[in-house]
This record gives sequence, C-alpha cells and structure tokens, in this order.
Amino acid sequence: MNSRQPANRLDTTFAALADPTRRAILARLISGEATVMELAEPFALSQPSISKHLKVLEHAGLISRGRDAQRRPCRIEPVPIAEATEWLESYRQLWEGRFLQLDALLDELKAKKKKRSSR
Amino acid sequence: MNSRQPANRLDTTFAALADPTRRAILARLISGEATVMELAEPFALSQPSISKHLKVLEHAGLISRGRDAQRRPCRIEPVPIAEATEWLESYRQLWEGRFLQLDALLDELKAKKKKRSSR
Repeated sequence: MNSRQPANRLDTTFAALADPTRRAILARLISGEATVMELAEPFALSQPSISKHLKVLEHAGLISRGRDAQRRPCRIEPVPIAEATEWLESYRQLWEGRFLQLDALLDELKAKKKKRSSR
Repeated sequence: MNSRQPANRLDTTFAALADPTRRAILARLISGEATVMELAEPFALSQPSISKHLKVLEHAGLISRGRDAQRRPCRIEPVPIAEATEWLESYRQLWEGRFLQLDALLDELKAKKKKRSSR
C-alpha cells in the first residue's frame, strides 16, 4: 500500500502523468493486465525503456506488478487517478462557480440598466 | 495563445500541477487576479521563488500575466485545466466501465450458481 500523504501523492501522480507514453500505458492497461513485453510491442520501444516508465508509474502507485517472477504482469490501481481527478474537478467547479457568479452579476446589471432606461 | 498540440500540452499541464505551491497558487487565483507580491505573502516564500513557479505556470498556459509593467497581475486560464480534467475523466470512465462489466459478470455467475444449487 501507498502510505504517502495525498498532497505528496498528487505530486507524484501528476508528474507520472506528464508523459505521453505513460498515459498510453495506463490507457492500454484499462483493457486488462499486461506484461512488459506485451506493453513494449505497440509502442515500438525497447523493454528497458518501457521498464523505466513502469517504475515511475509503480512508484506513483498508479500501477502494481504481479508476483509471478517471470511475467510480473502490470495492472492499474484506481486510487491516485481518482484523487487527481477530484482535485481537478474541485478546481474546475470553483472556476466555473466564479464565472456563473459573474454571469449572474452581468445579468443583474443589464436588467437594472434596462429597467432604468425604460422609465 | 498557446499553439501547442493538446498531447504536448497535457505533458506541460501535468508537470506544472506536480507541485503543491503551484497548485495552491492556482487555487488562490480562482478568487481573482493577484500580483507576485500578493501571491508570495501567504506562502511565506520569496518573490524570486514565486516568480519561478509563475514562469512554469505561464509556460504551461495555466496562467497569463497582465500588461501593466509594474504589477503584471496573474490570472488563471481555463483551457489546459479543462483538457487535463477531460483526459482524467475519460480514463476514469473507461476504468469504471470495466468494473461495472466485472460486477455484472459476477452477478451473472452468482445467479447461475444459485440456480444450479437450487435444482
């Protein structure tokens, strides 16, 4: 289990997501477990290169590896992604909330102006 | 305007978000524009240190700076955050979809087992 604090974990989650190959690996793993060899194939990358990306993803808790010593299949872990999505969602809600307030304020001002000019 | 491709921009967005001070700066800017001095205060950080973080955020297109040469107020820009949220959301939907399928499959298996044992 990952015992790091969520704030710290957000750091490693976002850092791990800041690479197109790692995002593609995660997207591939949604359809099921895969070995390093299976992951290396579609990306036209060497196994050591894929292994390096997998280490970053594993360190961030975004994937875990099976115990089967030969295959060590990778699978995705949902918690860090859920936390990162939550952070972005709350940020977006605040942001949208601010603009809804601005919209409401503009509507109010327009209505007042209209009322005044129709007097 | 930021003319980079979305995939490339996701890289810089996630990299920029991989720091607690930068996330806190963005959260602060939701309530309105702020100067470097105003931003440095609550964080107990030096202005050069805040300026460094602001450069990363500006490079990622997450904030823009005003033209007023003295104040150069910072404001948030919504597009990169929206794109990053979208990517995470679609990933989570796929992931949840997979588990809903798994749940349905388990329910089906349980129902079959029950039917068999009640014969």
